[in-house]
This record gives sequence, C-alpha cells and structure tokens, in this order.
Amino acid sequence: MAVLGATGYAGVELLRILGRHPGVKLAAVTSQQYAGKRISDVYPSLLGKCDLALEALALDAIDKIAAKAELVFAALPHETSVDAVAALLNRKKRVIDLSADFRLHDPRDYDRWYRGHKAPELLRDAVYGLTELHRKAIAKANLVANPGCYPTGAILGLAPLFAEKLVRGTVVIDAKSGATGAGRAASVDLSFSEVNENFKAYNVGVHRHTPEIEQELGEVAGARVTVMFAPHLVPMNRGILSTMYVELKKAPAEGALEKLYQDFYRGEPFVRLLAGGAFPQTRDVRGSNDCAVGFRYDRRTARLVVVTALDNLVKGAAGQAVENMNVMYGWPEDEGLRGLALVP
Amino acid sequence: MAVLGATGYAGVELLRILGRHPGVKLAAVTSQQYAGKRISDVYPSLLGKCDLALEALALDAIDKIAAKAELVFAALPHETSVDAVAALLNRKKRVIDLSADFRLHDPRDYDRWYRGHKAPELLRDAVYGLTELHRKAIAKANLVANPGCYPTGAILGLAPLFAEKLVRGTVVIDAKSGATGAGRAASVDLSFSEVNENFKAYNVGVHRHTPEIEQELGEVAGARVTVMFAPHLVPMNRGILSTMYVELKKAPAEGALEKLYQDFYRGEPFVRLLAGGAFPQTRDVRGSNDCAVGFRYDRRTARLVVVTALDNLVKGAAGQAVENMNVMYGWPEDEGLRGLALVP
Amino acid sequence: MAVLGATGYAGVELLRILGRHPGVKLAAVTSQQYAGKRISDVYPSLLGKCDLALEALALDAIDKIAAKAELVFAALPHETSVDAVAALLNRKKRVIDLSADFRLHDPRDYDRWYRGHKAPELLRDAVYGLTELHRKAIAKANLVANPGCYPTGAILGLAPLFAEKLVRGTVVIDAKSGATGAGRAASVDLSFSEVNENFKAYNVGVHRHTPEIEQELGEVAGARVTVMFAPHLVPMNRGILSTMYVELKKAPAEGALEKLYQDFYRGEPFVRLLAGGAFPQTRDVRGSNDCAVGFRYDRRTARLVVVTALDNLVKGAAGQAVENMNVMYGWPEDEGLRGLALVP
Amino acid sequence: MAVLGATGYAGVELLRILGRHPGVKLAAVTSQQYAGKRISDVYPSLLGKCDLALEALALDAIDKIAAKAELVFAALPHETSVDAVAALLNRKKRVIDLSADFRLHDPRDYDRWYRGHKAPELLRDAVYGLTELHRKAIAKANLVANPGCYPTGAILGLAPLFAEKLVRGTVVIDAKSGATGAGRAASVDLSFSEVNENFKAYNVGVHRHTPEIEQELGEVAGARVTVMFAPHLVPMNRGILSTMYVELKKAPAEGALEKLYQDFYRGEPFVRLLAGGAFPQTRDVRGSNDCAVGFRYDRRTARLVVVTALDNLVKGAAGQAVENMNVMYGWPEDEGLRGLALVP
Repeated sequence: MAVLGATGYAGVELLRILGRHPGVKLAAVTSQQYAGKRISDVYPSLLGKCDLALEALALDAIDKIAAKAELVFAALPHETSVDAVAALLNRKKRVIDLSADFRLHDPRDYDRWYRGHKAPELLRDAVYGLTELHRKAIAKANLVANPGCYPTGAILGLAPLFAEKLVRGTVVIDAKSGATGAGRAASVDLSFSEVNENFKAYNVGVHRHTPEIEQELGEVAGARVTVMFAPHLVPMNRGILSTMYVELKKAPAEGALEKLYQDFYRGEPFVRLLAGGAFPQTRDVRGSNDCAVGFRYDRRTARLVVVTALDNLVKGAAGQAVENMNVMYGWPEDEGLRGLALVP
Repeated sequence: MAVLGATGYAGVELLRILGRHPGVKLAAVTSQQYAGKRISDVYPSLLGKCDLALEALALDAIDKIAAKAELVFAALPHETSVDAVAALLNRKKRVIDLSADFRLHDPRDYDRWYRGHKAPELLRDAVYGLTELHRKAIAKANLVANPGCYPTGAILGLAPLFAEKLVRGTVVIDAKSGATGAGRAASVDLSFSEVNENFKAYNVGVHRHTPEIEQELGEVAGARVTVMFAPHLVPMNRGILSTMYVELKKAPAEGALEKLYQDFYRGEPFVRLLAGGAFPQTRDVRGSNDCAVGFRYDRRTARLVVVTALDNLVKGAAGQAVENMNVMYGWPEDEGLRGLALVP
Repeated sequence: MAVLGATGYAGVELLRILGRHPGVKLAAVTSQQYAGKRISDVYPSLLGKCDLALEALALDAIDKIAAKAELVFAALPHETSVDAVAALLNRKKRVIDLSADFRLHDPRDYDRWYRGHKAPELLRDAVYGLTELHRKAIAKANLVANPGCYPTGAILGLAPLFAEKLVRGTVVIDAKSGATGAGRAASVDLSFSEVNENFKAYNVGVHRHTPEIEQELGEVAGARVTVMFAPHLVPMNRGILSTMYVELKKAPAEGALEKLYQDFYRGEPFVRLLAGGAFPQTRDVRGSNDCAVGFRYDRRTARLVVVTALDNLVKGAAGQAVENMNVMYGWPEDEGLRGLALVP
Repeated sequence: MAVLGATGYAGVELLRILGRHPGVKLAAVTSQQYAGKRISDVYPSLLGKCDLALEALALDAIDKIAAKAELVFAALPHETSVDAVAALLNRKKRVIDLSADFRLHDPRDYDRWYRGHKAPELLRDAVYGLTELHRKAIAKANLVANPGCYPTGAILGLAPLFAEKLVRGTVVIDAKSGATGAGRAASVDLSFSEVNENFKAYNVGVHRHTPEIEQELGEVAGARVTVMFAPHLVPMNRGILSTMYVELKKAPAEGALEKLYQDFYRGEPFVRLLAGGAFPQTRDVRGSNDCAVGFRYDRRTARLVVVTALDNLVKGAAGQAVENMNVMYGWPEDEGLRGLALVP
C-alpha cells in the first residue's frame, strides 16, 4: 500500500490505523512540503514505528509507487487529487481517494460546487465509499471515492428515513466540527488564538459537502432531495456532531422508528444505535471508527431530531478508507479498526 | 445596591460591571457557601477592588440589606430566588431577578416547565427584562425578571420577523453555549475532563428556556408561537451562538429583510446588525453587552437563517441586568457597559 | 482479571487497553458510585464492547472477584485501596495497585506525606512498578505498586544521571499535567469554567508524589536525594510534561550524555530518546505507553535541562499497569500496548 | 495618538484600551496586510466603536501620521519597527515601541540575540519601559521601549530579591504563555489543531527575552546576572505564569520576604502581592493590567519559589504601553486601565 499526502491529518491518521493492520505493509508515503524528510521527523509520534522517507509526487514517483503498491490511498487536496488518481488507474492500481474529486456522479454538480472536472469520464466508475450503502460495489471497485466527513454523519443519520419515504420538505442539518476537519494549513483563521474560545457558523447553505448529501439521500429515496446544510466550527480537535431536524409525513407509532433504524443497520459493525432517545456525544467515538446515532420524536413540535457523532478523521476519513480497503480485499471489515475510543 | 448570590458566575460578573459604574455604590453581597469570607478570597481578581464580606442570606440579612440598598440584584438559583424577592418587594425595594422565577406570566407555564410557583400573585407585576422589547415597562417596574441567556439571543434574532408576521410553521433554534451557562457547580458532568474536547446536545425540545421564547415571540406576533429549541454545550467558557432556521410565508424582496431589522432596532445601543449576509462569532462580543445579529436568505432551500451571538454572562445575564437598572434609574442606558469585547 | 474502581479515569483507560489484549478476559468490574449499572451506561464509548455490570466493593464482592480473577487491578483512591488489596493478597491473588498506598517502602514516609498506614507489614513485599527499574522484581511480585503519573516522568528523565552520580545539589522538577491527572470528581476547582483558559501552580514543594521521586532516585544513586517538585495544571485532558533543571558536577563531554541515556535505556520498548537536543511534546505520546525523553546542556548557564513527556493515564497509570502485568505473566512486554499516539 | 501595526494582537488590544481612555483621540491606524480596509472589518468587535481606515506604512504615511499624532504606539515586528521609530523621532514625535528593537542598551547584545542593529545611536536615549523600575525616566522620554511579555513577569517577580542582593547563583525561570504571545500569524505550528491538547517547551535557554531579563536584573543588582529562561506554550489564549526557583544566600527570617516585597512595591497600582504563600493564577489577571506576585520559601529544599501572573497582551504589552503613556503625559497612571479581570 501507499499513502499520498501522508503529512495531512487524514494521511497521518491512515498511518496510525494501518500501523496496526496485520494485512498491510506500507511501501511508500508522499508529501510535497516535506519531501526528503522522514515522516517521523514531521510526526515524532511515529518515531521508531514508521520512519519511511517522504517522496515528492512527481510523475516518476507515480511509477515507482505503482511498482511497489497495489492499492493507493490518496489523501490529497481537492482538484489536485484527480491527476494522481487518473495516473494510478492507468497503471491498473486500485485507489481509495479521500478528496472530493470523485464523489459526485454528475460532472455538472462538480462544476457547480467546485470547478470544471478534469477527468469526468472517470466519474462513471467511481463508487461512493459510504460502506453501509455501497458495500457490494466497493468490493469490486477500482476507484472508491471516500465520503466527506460531514456527509458521512448526515447520510447515516437520515438514510433510514428517506429509504422509507417518511420525510416531508427540507431537512435542516446543523453540523458542528472540530478544527482538524479544515486540514493542516498555515492560516490565521485556523490559528489557535482565533479558534479557541470562539464558536461560529461558516459556509451556511453553500458548503461543498451539500451536493454529496443530496446525491446519496436522493438515491436512497429514489427522488430529488434538498437539504439546508449549516456547518459550524467547534474549538476542539476531533469530532463532528450533526443535529438534524426532520418533518415527518405523519407522526410515528410508538417504537416504529427504533425498529426502522435497527432493521436498516442490522449487522453493521460501525453504526452504533443509542436506545431510549439518548443522543451521542463526540467524545464517545474519538479515535474509533464508530458513527453513533440517536433520535427522539418531539410530539409538542412534531419534529424528529436525529443526532449523529463521529470522529471526522476516522469514520469521516481514514477509518472509513481502511474499512473500504477491507471490503475490497475481502478482509474482516473491522480489521485494524477495533481500537476503542480514547475517553476522556 | 446589593448582589444576592455574588459568588456565582452571574454574580461575580455583576461585580465586575458595577465596579466601573459611576452611579453605583455596592452595599452588600451574599453567598450561602462562602458566608464569612470576603468576596476577594473567592475571586482573587477582585483583590483590592471589591473586598466586601459575604453575608449568608437569612431573613435578618434581608432586613439589613433592605436597609442599605434601594435596588437589589438577585442572582440566586431558580425556585430559591422567589422567597428573597418576595421579602424584598415587601420591604419596598426594587429587584432585578436573574433567576427564572418571574419570567413566565402564566403560572401554569411555570408549573409545567418548573414546579408549582410559590408566589404566583407576584407574576402580574413582574416585567420581562428584555430591554429592547419592554423598555417603558422596565422604567417603572419594581420587579424585573431578567431574561434567560438563550432566550435573549433567540428573541432578539426572531422578533422582527414575528412582528411582521412573516414566519410560517415551527422555527428551529439550534443554540450552542459555553460552559459558564451551566453556572458554578461541583458536578462531574461539568468537569474539565468531561466538557473539554467534547460536543453534545442536551435537553433537546425540553429545555426550560423554551416557554420564555414562545411567550415573548407570541406577544410580539399576537399569536401562539411554537419553537423547537435545541441547546448544545461548547468547550469554551463564554458565549452563545444561536442558529435559527425560519420558513417565511413568501420569499423576501431584495433588501427587505435588511430594512426590517434596521427599522426594528434603530437606535438600540446593544443590538449590532451585521451587513451583507455576514454571521457573527461569539468572540466578537466576549465581555461586551452586545448582541450581534446576522441573517441570510437561501433561495435554493427557501430558508432564512438567522444567527445571533452574545456573551451569556453579559447581555445574557449581568450586563442586561445593569442595562435594566440604568433604564429604571433614567441613567444613560450604556452606563458601565461601554467596555469593548476582549479579543482574542 | 478484574478492575476495581473501573469508572475512574485510570479504570476506564484500563478497560480500553485490556479490550485489545489477547491474553485477558475481564471477569469483573467494580464501582461504588455506579454499582448496578453497566460500565457502558457510564461510558457509552464501551457500548457493545464491554457491557459488564458494575459491582459494589463489599467484602463478599472480594470473595466473588477472587474466585473469578487471578490478577486484580485496583484503581481505587489512596487510603481506600489498602483494604481491598490486603483482602485480595490474603486470598492469594496477585494485585497491581494504582493507588499510592504501597509505593513508599518506609511507613514513616507514608505517615509524613499521607496518613498512618493501615497495613505497613505489606510494604515489605510490594514492588515499585516502574518497569524500567524493577523488571525482575515485578516478574515475581504478588503486589505491584504502580507508580504515580508525575514520578514516572521525573524518574525516567533523571535516573541515568543519578546512576552515574553526576548530579550536584537539588534538582528542580517543574511539571505540568492535564486535568485527568486529578481524577474524575465533582469539584468546582476541576470544573471546565475554572480550569479552561487558566494556568496555575499547586502544591509546590508539598505534593505527595515528592517522596516517591526521592525514594527511587535515592535508590538509583545510592544516596539521599532531595528534589524541589512543583506541579502545574494545564487546560488539556491528557499529558504530563516535566521540565527538569540539573546542575552537574562537571560539564559533560560532547556526546557523553547521549551515550549515557542510550546505554541506560537500550532495548527499553517504551522509553523514546529524542536526538540532537530536541524536546518532546505531550501530544506525541497521547494515548500511547511511551515516555519521550529529551535533554540539552546549556553551556551559558551550566545547566542541563531534561524534558520528559508521557500520557498520565497510559504510561502514568493504566498502560504501565498492563506493562507490569505482561512482565508478571511473561508475556511480550508491549502486548496490548502497541497502539500509536492519537495525533492530533 | 496613532497605532502602527493595529491588526496584530497587541495593536488591537491597544485599541480596546484606548477606546475607554478619556485623554486619547485616535487619529490613525496602520496595517500592511489590511491597508484600505477598516479596522472593524478585520475585528468586528470594533464595529461602530472604532471604524478608522487602515493605512499602509509607506514613508508618506509617516508624514501624515506625524502631522496628526503627537505620540505614536509602534506595534510592529522586531527589526521592522526600527525604521518607523527613527522616522518618527526625526519628526519630533514621542514613541512607545512595543517591539524588541530598543530594549537592549548594548548594541552588542542586540547583535548577539537578534541581528545587527540599524540605528544603534538611538539606543542611548531609549528608556526601558518597565514602569515600576523606570518611572522617572519614562516621564521625560521621547522613546520608550516597552518590555517583552515574559521579562515583565520575570523582572517584577525577582527585582526585590536582586535589589537586596539576596540571590545566589543562577535563577531558573520556567515560564508558560498562552498562544497570543506568539502574535497573529499564519503558521501550522500555531494552528489550533497543533496547539490545542498539547504542551511543549520551546527555545529553552536561547529565547530572545533572556538578555532583557539579565540587563534589568543586573541593573537592579549592580552586578552581572545570569538566568536560565525556559518558555513553554499553554493551550489558552492569554496569560503568562512564571515559576521562578531561587537559591538565597541565607534562609530568610520569618516575614522578611513579605516585608521586602511590600516595601519595594508600596504604592504601585498594578503590582498585586498575594499574602500567606498563595500563588496567583493567570485567570485572575485576564484582561487587566495587574501583575500578581506570590512566593513561598520551602525550608525542606532551601529554595524560594516566586510565581507571577500577568496578561501578556495587557501588562505584558498594550496595557503597560498605555501606563507608560499616562506617565509621559502626567495623567493618572491607571487612566483607561481600571477594568477588572474577566473571570471566568
């Protein structure tokens, strides 16, 4: 295996998880910024555990990597990843792409929310890597488009409702993410003194994860779906909590929603349903690949509130990527992913 | 003046603000837990600046306080405050009560959301102390019920819309508060190791601030109002950000909402309207008495999103209490409240 | 195995680590406060992974636990643990005690820093469980006194210097710990609003971990050792950084200290020496059992500065306890402890 | 007055403080990065309160500023400030410089710790602006070199001891600062995800604030002074706590140190001495211009521990600058600086 973009937060989380995976031998790691250094120079936590030298991602690097690795994780920025992914697919490699470049099936959606897609012909073959929804297609895929962190929590929380066509109107998704969701970047806006002791909304109604959510819920529903997606920045490192407000076509019978969610997620190793109207907290899943789901129907206002929690770097990125790799190789789906959450 | 419950967070914030108020001479401070100590023993930040001895709040203390102070701030727990307030009103004192005991006009609402009210006859005379809505009544009131921290942000954000009867259906209020909102308490749930690096929803649909919001918006609208109020806990000390999702009866004309909010809040010293669809952040108002308001109509989903930010201990508690005192005394409304936000 | 005091932070960290240990089957968990509940009711992160019912720790519970477990981890408060430990030793169980009750060899030291020891005769047989120093004795011990979190970092950083008798005078140990070091407790002083955005020293010169450090360094040195130990509280959950200021008897030759530390810790799986005068950070070891050590000799001031970093709940408590269990059973010393640090 | 570098953290803190100062009319603010914007576009907390347009700092700007302001605060980066300061002094303006460019009297010290000084002839006239030590010279100065944040806390804590020549050997200064001390910068190392939940030492023994401390304590002592200065980064916004370990020439008599400190700081408005061996916390001075000082002599180890706490942006930067302006103008020294600390 190889990891492109290994010094970003999703990249180094991949190294953390793969370091405990018995089926994986890491052959190459790349980084534009730190090429020439060892990964453990950048992340001393890896010292003595993963000391590979970081390579730059020039075209000859792709050839070398293709020679060493049969599956490649690409943890590169949006609009950059597409080039490396196309080159690897050309060399008959399987790729799990953690960028947004292959998540939208319709290139017009990509053009609208990002910028003109450079390889729209590849979109046909890419499988949206939300394991719970697309397991069978992932098993056979050469290109898995790993879901965004926000969409993972939103879709898992809402899919059972849309599958049963219970939803009326626009769902409100009020999501809150820790700062690692913005990636590892030199930016005043992401500096400690700006984020700490502060809470804000951003990109309300215009965040690029919106079309992913609508695409996947639309597929589940067999109908066009529109959501109001409003992300917020929380002064913490890891975790996304999504609070979702749903109007149902009719009030649910006692226990009906519990049964619906249980049936929908039966046997799923990483969806953790909370009982009795309890809501999850982000710390309960920190460092683990779980997505915890809770919901409560409020008769006073006739609104269903669904809350999901996940670790944006694990189930929202690197963990789900490894889960998808396990599916692609026919390995136990939780191989390398059995670690319990780090609490507190 | 006197402050009952001076060692709680709203109490000590009152001392901070009153310490700079030229019209105020503090005569007495009380605390059950620390009676006998000086307030500056409990809060070394007050050393040399406010060194009053803390008194216990027995009945004779009420007499002594009544002899020394003509206006009393009561920053006591809900269901406890009512006794002290009744005793002070009996002694012809004016009271600004920061608890929830006198905020709801209808005792049946109090019974439903709290527990049987001990002095329902006083509810008639209490004025809900949201300065922007009830300035005239506050000026003449003997008992001002200072609003809850969450209701202040929610009502200020939504009142212009309800006044013009623009709203259809249930408004969703997704609110996020720093930890001081829960008060100063010995509790595992509020301990640093539990709150830090965590984000959670709590009391969704059942929080006791709900009826306050519905009462005030209902008055403004001249009709019954129902809201879905969902509070969350943010790992920071101060600040409330409320994200509110509103369905309008019809799409607004260009600039109409801007004009509506400007007209509604013209001349208000502490409502800060952001222009151009910008949303406020909590840090912009930390330590100040401002409530910042931003909004954006999203045509794609036909939803209006209103975001307000305030400091829960200032405009959400002690600052608004001082603002009300200024109104009651005919002083400049921003006396003692001109300090700029502490950023960063 | 069994864990007494499973709902404290060291207790739940033991469950996290043991949950991945192939040699361990957990038979019983106890909690005074939550007896009757399942551990996963208290810590939802364990849901579906460890759902044992919590037992109260009455005397008959000891019998039941002794019947089920051959080794018991006691993660109970100081001065409480001694009773349970004595009862278990009576029943021929092996015990790893995470409290301070058996760390000091001389009961007079215990009396001076704690309060009269209830079972001083057991102190003779207890082995101080700093694995790197006492591996052989631990292998045969029935009672291992797991070190305090602060002493682990201090002793590992200083032992090579004392072993070679290089130190002159009193060493200054300025230590900084995250809040979980204070345990899981309902206390205003530990509440989020008090700890967050604050930094303070506490128990300077009088902290109870002082005699542990002096005892162990004194043994290593073969002479009486005195240290000035000054702990501080950092607004973060996990991690201890100890900055230690040492006057050497003479200036070290180039490379001499590097060689000294390398020789002293050769082959140690969990001591990570940083090269070239680099200092560790706490995040590099978060969630891992490593103690990272860096040092730099400053010729301008003729002072050696040694900095160590560890996770107070892992190498400083639960991880080192599991490491000691591995030694006692002859298992690979890093069994269950190979997880990489959670960064960021 | 004018503020150069108004969008840095010291700059915006100056605006916050000057906004409440009755003697000050702000005439100009500059920023290279945001020239053309209003300061309240960059800091919405200033909206409606300070809306001046930011000017670039070209040479003609200096002329315009010199025409409008008689005193200028320069809050520019080290090695940049010198040019603007020289130009302003040429135009007969008084300057309070918050950079390090004029703090060291001996240009060789500047060369050693920074880089060759561009205007060494100005060093003669610059007064080191630690108000407590140099009040008389400040009153008459045209150029005040405002002290560094760390030196302020270190010098105030140690000066009484050096004045009485009580100190033996090298003092250890273990200092811990919040993140705003590093300024407002786009840097991965200062990003939230790197600083949060982490604690580290940096620049141990080689930090550029070292020579300031040694210069000033040397002057007080009338002898050469050497200190081991070791700064650390705390995951919080504001505050510096310095823990200082001092060997005394002889054990102090009971009460002698209390008397020494009281005498030394008698009448000082911003030095707050704690009694009875209590140590200050950073939150006690957040947002205020106080430096709190506590100390305790530990007979067991024969070490005096002195702890000081201040807000690095107030007494450590902007507040002390305003204090110096008050001295220069003969205004009450605490004008604009009477605000109480924001707790919690």
